Formats: sequence, structure tokens, C-alpha cells
Amino acid sequence: MTNLKTSYPIKPLNQQAISEATSRLNNLVKPPGSLGELEAITQKLAGISGQLFYDTSKRCVIIMASDNGVIEEGVAAAPQIVTYTQTINFTRGITGLTTLAKQFNSDIVIVDVGINADINHPMVINKKIRKSTSNIANGPAMSYDEAMQAVLVGIETAMQAAKDGYKILGAGEMGIGNTTTSAAVLSALTGLPPEQVTGKGAGLKEEAYRHKIKTVQKALDLNKPSPTDPLDVLAKVGGFDIAAMAGLYIGGAHMEIPVVIDGFISTVAALVAVKINPLVKEYMFASHASVEPGYIHASQALSLKPCLHLNMRLGEGSGCPIMFAIIDAACATMRDMATFEEANIEEEYLDKI
Amino acid sequence: MTNLKTSYPIKPLNQQAISEATSRLNNLVKPPGSLGELEAITQKLAGISGQLFYDTSKRCVIIMASDNGVIEEGVAAAPQIVTYTQTINFTRGITGLTTLAKQFNSDIVIVDVGINADINHPMVINKKIRKSTSNIANGPAMSYDEAMQAVLVGIETAMQAAKDGYKILGAGEMGIGNTTTSAAVLSALTGLPPEQVTGKGAGLKEEAYRHKIKTVQKALDLNKPSPTDPLDVLAKVGGFDIAAMAGLYIGGAHMEIPVVIDGFISTVAALVAVKINPLVKEYMFASHASVEPGYIHASQALSLKPCLHLNMRLGEGSGCPIMFAIIDAACATMRDMATFEEANIEEEYLDKI
Repeated sequence: MTNLKTSYPIKPLNQQAISEATSRLNNLVKPPGSLGELEAITQKLAGISGQLFYDTSKRCVIIMASDNGVIEEGVAAAPQIVTYTQTINFTRGITGLTTLAKQFNSDIVIVDVGINADINHPMVINKKIRKSTSNIANGPAMSYDEAMQAVLVGIETAMQAAKDGYKILGAGEMGIGNTTTSAAVLSALTGLPPEQVTGKGAGLKEEAYRHKIKTVQKALDLNKPSPTDPLDVLAKVGGFDIAAMAGLYIGGAHMEIPVVIDGFISTVAALVAVKINPLVKEYMFASHASVEPGYIHASQALSLKPCLHLNMRLGEGSGCPIMFAIIDAACATMRDMATFEEANIEEEYLDKI
Repeated sequence: MTNLKTSYPIKPLNQQAISEATSRLNNLVKPPGSLGELEAITQKLAGISGQLFYDTSKRCVIIMASDNGVIEEGVAAAPQIVTYTQTINFTRGITGLTTLAKQFNSDIVIVDVGINADINHPMVINKKIRKSTSNIANGPAMSYDEAMQAVLVGIETAMQAAKDGYKILGAGEMGIGNTTTSAAVLSALTGLPPEQVTGKGAGLKEEAYRHKIKTVQKALDLNKPSPTDPLDVLAKVGGFDIAAMAGLYIGGAHMEIPVVIDGFISTVAALVAVKINPLVKEYMFASHASVEPGYIHASQALSLKPCLHLNMRLGEGSGCPIMFAIIDAACATMRDMATFEEANIEEEYLDKI
């Protein structure tokens, strides 16, 4: 079995580069610290890349698409076929994520990790582990070996993206039923009760919502995932999408590339990645505060604060392109603002005071 | 004396256009409401413009620059000359605001409403009321008539911007000492005590900060601004910058153009504008939650929530270009996402399920 920490080592951030970034930030024409998170972003990018002026203009959101056996329990508002149709819609550029990606000059990469249909589309990368996980209310979602395979799909996809020249990645997903599996994974990792971390997903009615909470509890009681073994948690109550996203973060960090987190599912996957290798967190950027109720708990467990408060709960990776724009803002100030020295005003103006 | 409500009337939002926008939003390929604030933004833009697809790509941040007599009291960390030098730096594109404006394809418009220096620069529009307001710790900042003149500068600037084809405006400012005047205006309008609404501005030390609070209290005690007469508040404890910004909001709304609010000073000016004509609020967009302590109180009094939490406190209008990007995101989803009908998948794919 692959040892993820030793096979894909992650370097701590470059402290020298962070110091240089801090130095420049303190010399730009503004009160020290007055650009807040924009300053923190450029410091972190410097630590990741070793560069003062890191160029994130070549970027992509990677969508991990797969199906979840647990939808048999009636825990999702949408039918399973929507995983497939939305995956095709990504290729057509007509979904929430893809219109935002286009707006903010981001490419998209679509990976089929386990959609419950045969897909033969030139834009969809076939990395299918198998068609759909099993129903976590009846047994484990997948074997331990399949969980590892799915994580490796994510790592390899991130490594390929780095080789293709992408300088920053976003973690997206598509998988009907994945707010249920995310709630189960989060509950398993944190010990929080299912009713606190389970939400209504795409729009469940009250009765179905209560059943969803019970289903998460049943999956946990039946499968008994070990909170100290993130692969075991993924295998027993997770999904191929969550596992592959966890791998994305690890692969990005291993290649010294930042990865942007989207909403609830993406944050739960980030938490799994951090449990596998705590250093991966240094390469992550939170984006938006999803209103899916589990988000706040996942975000607190991860301890990364989002700067966008948009009341969104779409998923797909839709928060990532918007965060790319915020990172653009940060990079623009670092790159284009003058230092106090450079900003000296010509005498001709000063004479007039 | 001009009656601002009747001379520059503001239309209520177009409810029919809002309904049409809501209808389309509910038919886009996503769970209803799942794009949160992005949906609210496009609804509001529809109400303002009467158009489903409002194009905000031609935009500008308007900077009202002026000096404040109260700096004699030692309430500012920076010397008065910085109002002048930063105004020149705006023309050179090297400040926080101007680098962000360039990043997000926004023009800037610089207006001298009362800088304490003669400026003869082709990019700086001369609308100087006079060189600096008077010291509010010794008497009123300006006469009632001057307050009206400054508001009219803002209204006329917004009207000119509309004629020049700008589709959305941002409210920016430059004026050393203007967190002191903003605190005094906010305290006068809301009744909140100076210690709650006064902050350290660009970086005051503790002792100077306590003196700043006392100065705000002294200005209020001495001048006794009438909380029910926003022009009186501007005249007695405000500034030309705040007054002109208040006019910007009114002028934008009068021309049926949205105006984006920046941080503390900008939000206080927005509150003044709303006290002059409550309808103006329908045309405003909050941008970011400034960490200047008075911001949260001004924002609550205005009752508009910001969606960017960036811990910024730079001013200048620096939050506006970033908010333009968020509005771009909203417009992109409204314009480019498919409806459920349009998103129907070809039979060739459906056969494979």
C-alpha cells in the first residue's frame, strides 16, 4: 500500500520568500497591513512558490465527478442521472461553475472517477474506479484499496496539471448524494453528530432531510470508520469524488502549487487531505462560506477562513473562479503598487503646497 | 436652496424587471437560490436598469479628494500633504485603488473638492469648494451652503459619468483626517457615542487615538449638528469629500445607475445620502467589511451587507473594483448559464444511462 506522506512529500513554505514579501508589503504606499487578506494571500503565494510575483493567470478548476450508492436511500433531491447530465453540461460551458470559469479566465478539467454511466467524451478524462460507490447505509462505500486508488487519481491529476503549466488549481466536484457522504466523513473525522453537519443539499423537503440525518448515523454505526485513519473513513462512508479531491490537494502541494477550496464537499475533502499530511494546509486557500450547514464546521475543523460571503451552495467548484479573481487582486497590488520610495512626487507638485 | 429630493428625483426599482430576473434565475441549471448573493445582485441590477442582462463592463471609481481642517488637532497618522501626493499618485496608477482598478478594467475619475493645494493636472477635475474645511473642533467644517455645493459636485459628477457611458460607479475618497469627520457624522446621525465609531485610521498610537475620540466628542458638543438634517450634519462636522460622495450616490440613483460603496468613509457618506432620500439605497451595493471599527455600525445603520471579508482598511475606493468583479460573476451566471430546457442532453448520451 502506498505511503502517501513519503511517496508524495510536501515541502514547508519558503520562509525567506515570505519575509521578502512582507518587507515589500510594508513598503508599499499604504498604511501597513491595510490591505488585510490581500497581503496574506501574497505572503502565502510567496511561501508556496518562492517568488515575490507569482503569476496565477494560467489556472483551472478540476472537477471530480462520480456517483454515490447512498442515493438509493432517497437522500438526494435530484435523480442520479444529474451527475451524468451536469458532467456533459460542464463540457458545454453552461453550468454555474463553467460560466464563472470563463468569466475569470480559468480552464476546467473534468475527471470521471466513478459516474454511473459510460462516458465517451473527448473533454472527460476517464479515471473511473467503478460505476458508483456502494450504499454506505448497507456497508462500506468502497474497499480500502479503491479509496487509495481514488486518492491517487487526484494526486496524478494535479501532477499532470502542474506539468501542463497550471499555476493554481481549484477543487470542484459533481456527484448526486455527495452532501450525504461529506456529512458522514465530517462526522467521522470530527465526532460532531450527524444532525449538526447534515444539510438539505440541493433542496430536500423536511421529512427527507430527517431521513438523510438518520442515514448518515446508520452509515457511521454500521461501518465504524476509524477517525485516525482518513483512508478508512473515505472507504467506509466517503465517495470517489471526495477521495479524488483529497488527492488533488496533496498532489498540488507536492508540486508546490496552491489549490483553492470551494464549498462544503470541497472543504471536507480538504480536511481529509490535511489528516493525511498536515503540511498540505499551507498550500490551500479557502474561498467562500457555503450556506450548507456542515460548511462552518468543516471550515472550523480545517481552520481556514473564507473571504467571500455569497450565501452560495451550488458546489461544482463554483467558488474557485471567484476566488481566482480575489487572488488576482492580491497579485495586482503586490506587483503594481509603488513603494514609498518609488511614489515620491516630483518637486514641481510639491512646490505648490 | 436646492431641494435635492425634488430636483434630483429617484425612481423606485422596476418590479416587473425584478420578477423577470427571478423567473430566469429559477430556471437556470442549479438548485433554486443556490447562487445566493449572485442572484440577489442580478435581481437588483434588473430592478435598477430594467434590463435582464445589464452590462457593467464600462465602469469607474470616482475619487472625491479634499482636506480636513481637523487635522490641526493631531488626529491623523499621516501629514496633510499626503492628500495631495496620493491624489497625484492616483493619476500615476500606483496606489492600492488604481492598481485594483486596472486589474478589473475600471476607469478612475479624480475630483478635487477641496485639497489644500493648487493642483493643475489634466486628470484631476477641479471642483474645489475651497482649500480644506475648517477645524470642526473649533466651529463648523463649512457653511450650509458649502455643504450643498459639495453634494451638488457629487451629483453633477455622477450625472456626467452617466452621460459618458459609465454603467456602474464606485465611491472613492482621499482626505487625511476623514476617518475623524466620518466618525463625527456617524455619531451625529445615529446617536452612537464617539468611542464606538472612532478608529485608529491609518495607524494612530493609543494616546493619539484617545485624543481623536475626545476631538469627535468636542466637535459634536460644540457644533450641535441636527440629526434630522443631513446637510446640517455635513456642514457642522463633515467634510467636502463625504458631502461629494453622498452626492455621487444621489446622482447615480437619479441617473438609474448603481453605485458601489467602499469602506467606512464611503458607507458613512452612503448613510448621509439615504437620509437625504431613502430611495437611493436601492441603487447601492456594499462591497467589503472594512476593519475600521466604525464600519460595522455604519453598515448596520445602512442595512446593506458586504460580501467581501478581506480585513481591508485602505480606503481610496479600493473595495469597489473588487466588487465589480463579484458583479461580473453575477452577470456572467445570469447571461451564460443555460435554463433547464436549454440544458437538455442529447439522446446519444442519454441512451448510455
